[in-house]
Amino acid sequence: MPHIITKIDRAVPADIEALSRFGSATIHEAQGRLGALTSRIKPIDRNMALCGPAFTVQSSPRDNIMLQLAIHYAQAGDVIVVSAGEYEEAGSFGDVLGNACLAKGIAGLVTDTGVRDTLSLIRLGLPVFSLSICIKGTVKETLGQINGEIVVGGQVIRPGDVIRGDADGVVTTRREDAAEIAVKCAAREAEEARFIEDYKAGRTIIDVCNLDAVLKAKGLTTDL
Amino acid sequence: MPHIITKIDRAVPADIEALSRFGSATIHEAQGRLGALTSRIKPIDRNMALCGPAFTVQSSPRDNIMLQLAIHYAQAGDVIVVSAGEYEEAGSFGDVLGNACLAKGIAGLVTDTGVRDTLSLIRLGLPVFSLSICIKGTVKETLGQINGEIVVGGQVIRPGDVIRGDADGVVTTRREDAAEIAVKCAAREAEEARFIEDYKAGRTIIDVCNLDAVLKAKGLTTDL
Amino acid sequence: MPHIITKIDRAVPADIEALSRFGSATIHEAQGRLGALTSRIKPIDRNMALCGPAFTVQSSPRDNIMLQLAIHYAQAGDVIVVSAGEYEEAGSFGDVLGNACLAKGIAGLVTDTGVRDTLSLIRLGLPVFSLSICIKGTVKETLGQINGEIVVGGQVIRPGDVIRGDADGVVTTRREDAAEIAVKCAAREAEEARFIEDYKAGRTIIDVCNLDAVLKAKGLTTDL
Amino acid sequence: MPHIITKIDRAVPADIEALSRFGSATIHEAQGRLGALTSRIKPIDRNMALCGPAFTVQSSPRDNIMLQLAIHYAQAGDVIVVSAGEYEEAGSFGDVLGNACLAKGIAGLVTDTGVRDTLSLIRLGLPVFSLSICIKGTVKETLGQINGEIVVGGQVIRPGDVIRGDADGVVTTRREDAAEIAVKCAAREAEEARFIEDYKAGRTIIDVCNLDAVLKAKGLTTDL
Amino acid sequence: MPHIITKIDRAVPADIEALSRFGSATIHEAQGRLGALTSRIKPIDRNMALCGPAFTVQSSPRDNIMLQLAIHYAQAGDVIVVSAGEYEEAGSFGDVLGNACLAKGIAGLVTDTGVRDTLSLIRLGLPVFSLSICIKGTVKETLGQINGEIVVGGQVIRPGDVIRGDADGVVTTRREDAAEIAVKCAAREAEEARFIEDYKAGRTIIDVCNLDAVLKAKGLTTDL
Amino acid sequence: MPHIITKIDRAVPADIEALSRFGSATIHEAQGRLGALTSRIKPIDRNMALCGPAFTVQSSPRDNIMLQLAIHYAQAGDVIVVSAGEYEEAGSFGDVLGNACLAKGIAGLVTDTGVRDTLSLIRLGLPVFSLSICIKGTVKETLGQINGEIVVGGQVIRPGDVIRGDADGVVTTRREDAAEIAVKCAAREAEEARFIEDYKAGRTIIDVCNLDAVLKAKGLTTDL
Repeated sequence: MPHIITKIDRAVPADIEALSRFGSATIHEAQGRLGALTSRIKPIDRNMALCGPAFTVQSSPRDNIMLQLAIHYAQAGDVIVVSAGEYEEAGSFGDVLGNACLAKGIAGLVTDTGVRDTLSLIRLGLPVFSLSICIKGTVKETLGQINGEIVVGGQVIRPGDVIRGDADGVVTTRREDAAEIAVKCAAREAEEARFIEDYKAGRTIIDVCNLDAVLKAKGLTTDL
Repeated sequence: MPHIITKIDRAVPADIEALSRFGSATIHEAQGRLGALTSRIKPIDRNMALCGPAFTVQSSPRDNIMLQLAIHYAQAGDVIVVSAGEYEEAGSFGDVLGNACLAKGIAGLVTDTGVRDTLSLIRLGLPVFSLSICIKGTVKETLGQINGEIVVGGQVIRPGDVIRGDADGVVTTRREDAAEIAVKCAAREAEEARFIEDYKAGRTIIDVCNLDAVLKAKGLTTDL
Repeated sequence: MPHIITKIDRAVPADIEALSRFGSATIHEAQGRLGALTSRIKPIDRNMALCGPAFTVQSSPRDNIMLQLAIHYAQAGDVIVVSAGEYEEAGSFGDVLGNACLAKGIAGLVTDTGVRDTLSLIRLGLPVFSLSICIKGTVKETLGQINGEIVVGGQVIRPGDVIRGDADGVVTTRREDAAEIAVKCAAREAEEARFIEDYKAGRTIIDVCNLDAVLKAKGLTTDL
Repeated sequence: MPHIITKIDRAVPADIEALSRFGSATIHEAQGRLGALTSRIKPIDRNMALCGPAFTVQSSPRDNIMLQLAIHYAQAGDVIVVSAGEYEEAGSFGDVLGNACLAKGIAGLVTDTGVRDTLSLIRLGLPVFSLSICIKGTVKETLGQINGEIVVGGQVIRPGDVIRGDADGVVTTRREDAAEIAVKCAAREAEEARFIEDYKAGRTIIDVCNLDAVLKAKGLTTDL
Repeated sequence: MPHIITKIDRAVPADIEALSRFGSATIHEAQGRLGALTSRIKPIDRNMALCGPAFTVQSSPRDNIMLQLAIHYAQAGDVIVVSAGEYEEAGSFGDVLGNACLAKGIAGLVTDTGVRDTLSLIRLGLPVFSLSICIKGTVKETLGQINGEIVVGGQVIRPGDVIRGDADGVVTTRREDAAEIAVKCAAREAEEARFIEDYKAGRTIIDVCNLDAVLKAKGLTTDL
Repeated sequence: MPHIITKIDRAVPADIEALSRFGSATIHEAQGRLGALTSRIKPIDRNMALCGPAFTVQSSPRDNIMLQLAIHYAQAGDVIVVSAGEYEEAGSFGDVLGNACLAKGIAGLVTDTGVRDTLSLIRLGLPVFSLSICIKGTVKETLGQINGEIVVGGQVIRPGDVIRGDADGVVTTRREDAAEIAVKCAAREAEEARFIEDYKAGRTIIDVCNLDAVLKAKGLTTDL
């Protein structure tokens, strides 16, 4: 397998757009509680959000040569996703690369290592999700892979899969499932909206969620 | 002991109100440096604060059935406090349950596991203190206890004890001590205000805190 | 060696001023990727920044007596830097000491333990960098050293060395190297500005960073 | 409440003896999956085991004055249990105190901080369970409580409760429940012995545990 | 996809046997520094070692129902590999299941959660590699997948891939690469044996590894 | 400063020999509770011990080129001490380098990153103290420094300082203080031996350590 694969199948834009209307937690639930990356990967500002096809990077810890190449080869709208060994003490991305991403229309970055120049990145408006914020520099020594299957935050991410990130974290959806999951998200959100209306109207969780039967079956006891 | 106890002795409202005027650190100091939960439990937004009687929940990690029940049985003004195994990788509470809490007038949530839908919760204005922010869903399988004595963040919390949380963290006060601790907090705050006035007037810590005698006794040496 | 040394050689003010114009990551890179403290030490608010000569404190974990003395002996403009055992569960500094620092014109605090009263400290405008935010009180029992060589966040810090902190973290520069490093920072920033202009003009990273030769030497393969 | 309480109700010796025949995991299961301390507290040698009534100590992190007093006041057979703030970087107990324990017939130590002189302690044959092995010394400054209710490893431990530790970890049993739990342990062990015989005879888990019905109810699917 | 897949392609026995002659570190190096699981997963006794085809299990944290089923469906020689959310505070496997494994000839277990009954498991001689040793019980509630592609310790593991574990840790090899990697391992070991002979004969690393040229190219300076 | 300094002042052999008679904890105490490295650095086998002058190495995380050079330049009896960024997920040293060390008579290795081939290293009898055991390979790319002042485990270590490691951990002693500290160690050990005799004779800690006066001054209360 060559180091760099440029020809990948991306999720359909309409599916990405559809998923972008839902939060990361909703998508995770809608696909059967799957696809959530570790909660340690978070946006550097909680107002950041992104949704796009994964452009995957396998790099070594404390080495950003493959990330630099990914910015060269990625397309507008792509989310660059980097697997770099869950290493907190490196800042592999900052305002220079952030500007390079913006110039190319890249949708954002998700990485399991650190970034820096966070105030600049926030000003630029580029969504960046990382394991840490760290000033320590990286080297450009060891080749890795672009657009292989990678593991980030405990999840397998394939090139072209949908990456959705927001204040709560990051979730990945198989590109071929994206349309179906978006439909399930909509159903889930509608159901949650009904729950909320019920609560506001004075009903309680036991009624709304029909917990009574569940609880009886489990042998719940109370002092009432 | 039944799973759910609804009849508990809550701290006196006037005492809760009195404690709510002081920060969590002041209360911790005033009661002899006791009652502070681990610093890993923090508000999801630093402007959040809460003060109220604990409505305690013992649940299993990654399971929110008892938290759902707690929302049903808690009263307006209660702080729901959940012991769920210090587990970061679960989001046990989000905007649906947040709305349910608001509808009932619940004062807030303190939990040793994760929450999600944080932007919504911030918009709702419900104070939420948690170990993490995580999108991973929970199950509703294993019964636990409501209003037993629980351990959260290294502290024993009994139902009805006062829970005070703010930007710095969370402290618990025995309900029967609340009045006395509020008085001690006021004394401590007055003393601190005098210290601050002294510093502003140009005096220094050694004078203000009478450190000289302490230091001599300890054999301090200087190059002066 | 006495416990307290007050006569130290501070970095030249002009050099400190020069370094203060650059971010912590830039300084770290300019001095050969050296001097960065662990990424776990962060400002309590990301808008905080400081730059000044280190006034060093060696204390025991959960004991702030030496920090109190440091405030007494430090000069206007100094950054108090505390080594206290990388201990998260103690709040060694709050608004009373924060006011004392402000009254003396101290430039800020960097510590490898916790602080508290964070909202007050933010209001005061005193830059504070810490390992944690924690309400747990400290004792005043064990003597340590003021203005010895200390280790904080994995770095040796000597009294008078320059400490630069911002949203991304903290870096230290030997006082005798400060002028030279400031010059290198300026060169690096100019180069980065050129890179950014190049990207905005549509060139890509491989061209701008001359990665092609590096990559060929490493045997990079692609599907193109 | 005085600092030192010497008159406590210990679990009945026969109950302690009965529980000592079962492993820590069996006791945890037999009492409904309760009472297990964090898995971070482990014996310093996996051949160590203890079972006895808790003689509880509340101390400050990095301070062993109360532990020293506990050795004075404890009885032969007691297990000294120390809550010291889950602090890894202190060695609060070593061969001198180990000899003092042996001289008094103390059954062992469980602590949520560190110990040292481990080879000597192993030679002495005193069972010691700790959060870490650390050479860093402690102070003798801050008073705490002996034989109050404490929290260790996330569990409430009352004086006199049974503490059982072995290679797998530590569990606590309420002294008033000890007899009943020992009976349940015996039943559980008998059942497990039958399971093991079944497996050796060639039956499989699905048969032995009657998983088939459970699985059908859950909608399990296979490729068979 | 059904929950349980029983028909999988296992690595060829001869290849497994060939790989079993090499240590985990050697295999990792021979396949280009790939395939190593996190160092947090270790044998419960350092004399344990295993090598066999992966029989993969996706379970929920603190839930061992799928592991129980895996024991039913696995073949003699298989290594059961469990992804359970990198959760330390659960003991999902002990001597009962250990006996079940032995009865079926299962080669061992690798899991990213905890196990218990470690002394019994060591006596049984079943190789067990885990993230922790923990007595806390699990539930049998949530279905997962058997023989899907899983992530354990940051690595993707497919059913039938080779799993090699020893005192140093665990490595996985794609089943189709196993023969080739075994050849590379042999070459690497022969080379290392020559290095060791050289060292014993008094030559030094710079000569043996030809570091001189590398160092000159990098601009190394010395005081010689 | 050149990358490699070979001419260093080592602690006097007689002083090293004197210190080698005491445990790491005793040395730490004798020098005023200073010099202890983090408890996370431990021998790979608890029967390992070393004592010798530090031959210091500053390397990058996941890069062992400088460690390889250190083996070339170190003398018989030296302890190679490596600062590599407190990185657990790399195995920078194994049986090949272990043999190289043995061939040269190097006394052992202390490192703040990982090692591998642990069973071989144990068989070789080379004392190795590390942060982790990890199979992941390292690169040989980035130059660092040999025999500069380094930070390992939170302590400054200068070339030639004495490094003492045993089952409990590692401590460093300034080479110029070694003789004096050895004397203090002997005094401390004699005192501890007297304490132990006292305990065996039935006296208790309060008598032996004269705690009564201390406790009265602190206001201790009891139920006696």
